Amino acid sequence: MAVSSVNNGVNVQALLDAREALKGAPEAAKFNWRASCKWQNGTHSTTSIQGFHGLGQEQSHKTETSFSADHPEIFASEDQGVTPVEFMLVGLASCLTAGVAAVAQNRGIQLRSVESQVEGSMDIRGILGIDSDVRNGYDDIKITFNIDADASKKDIEALVAQSQKRSAVYDCITNPTNVTVVVA
Amino acid sequence: MAVSSVNNGVNVQALLDAREALKGAPEAAKFNWRASCKWQNGTHSTTSIQGFHGLGQEQSHKTETSFSADHPEIFASEDQGVTPVEFMLVGLASCLTAGVAAVAQNRGIQLRSVESQVEGSMDIRGILGIDSDVRNGYDDIKITFNIDADASKKDIEALVAQSQKRSAVYDCITNPTNVTVVVA
Repeated sequence: MAVSSVNNGVNVQALLDAREALKGAPEAAKFNWRASCKWQNGTHSTTSIQGFHGLGQEQSHKTETSFSADHPEIFASEDQGVTPVEFMLVGLASCLTAGVAAVAQNRGIQLRSVESQVEGSMDIRGILGIDSDVRNGYDDIKITFNIDADASKKDIEALVAQSQKRSAVYDCITNPTNVTVVVA
Repeated sequence: MAVSSVNNGVNVQALLDAREALKGAPEAAKFNWRASCKWQNGTHSTTSIQGFHGLGQEQSHKTETSFSADHPEIFASEDQGVTPVEFMLVGLASCLTAGVAAVAQNRGIQLRSVESQVEGSMDIRGILGIDSDVRNGYDDIKITFNIDADASKKDIEALVAQSQKRSAVYDCITNPTNVTVVVA
């Protein structure tokens, strides 16, 4: 096999080993991801991420990362960060991109570049409460990949399809997920 | 009314004016949010956001913002950013927080602090393909608000409930949204 000469920077063997290990340890597969949000002023907030839980114990990212979110100036806000809905697009694009790299590695396909444009359409009459028939969220999201790789168009399409099939964010956006909102 | 002395930094009058204006201009209410993602190496990618479309024309954030996403070291990755699924938590918390501030302003409630902890549970046997009955995405998300404001517990709970009712990200996570994935 030519697989060994391919290097997309993904340690697929470690993932395959993890799969084998977790088959017999379902408790270790239970992860808990977290974020802490603090209102600043107006529609501006900052959200910090560092710790999470998985493999049966507390884990931590190497560093804490904070993200500013705000509404843009055309909504009479100060635009001190991207909008909350744009963070969903970041999650979707990055999830599918990581998947493409991992699947390509597993299939022995050398990637040279993977770029994508994601866009979500939204009718803001929903969030403004103008029309109760208009939903608050995106009515449609489209992501377009441009991939340069040592593979046929058909194989590249199969890569993307497999990434989509295993994507956590794609699943969360396309299928309903329960969200509980509590006031302490 | 005591409303005029309340200042949460949200220009509610501008939002109410926008609501009136968009009632008669549904085309202007159609927004398009965008992000561009570029694979770096392994599971690491960077996603940039600046332009969007709304109010009938091209718009732009004041600056371009880029976000690194990656998988953590326990997944044999380099942890050069938060995970794609954590970006969803950023979006959810910031969306509900902006809504709390806006609704509080509209209801004449002075906020002193709004903090929230959001956590999402996920069984990674889904994304690893161990068990096809396990979904890839979050099986449950919970967000807990701690709000200090000039209002009763009941009024604060009503604030959060109204924010939830008008939240774009809450809607996208709790209800299915169509996502089209294209290879150019």
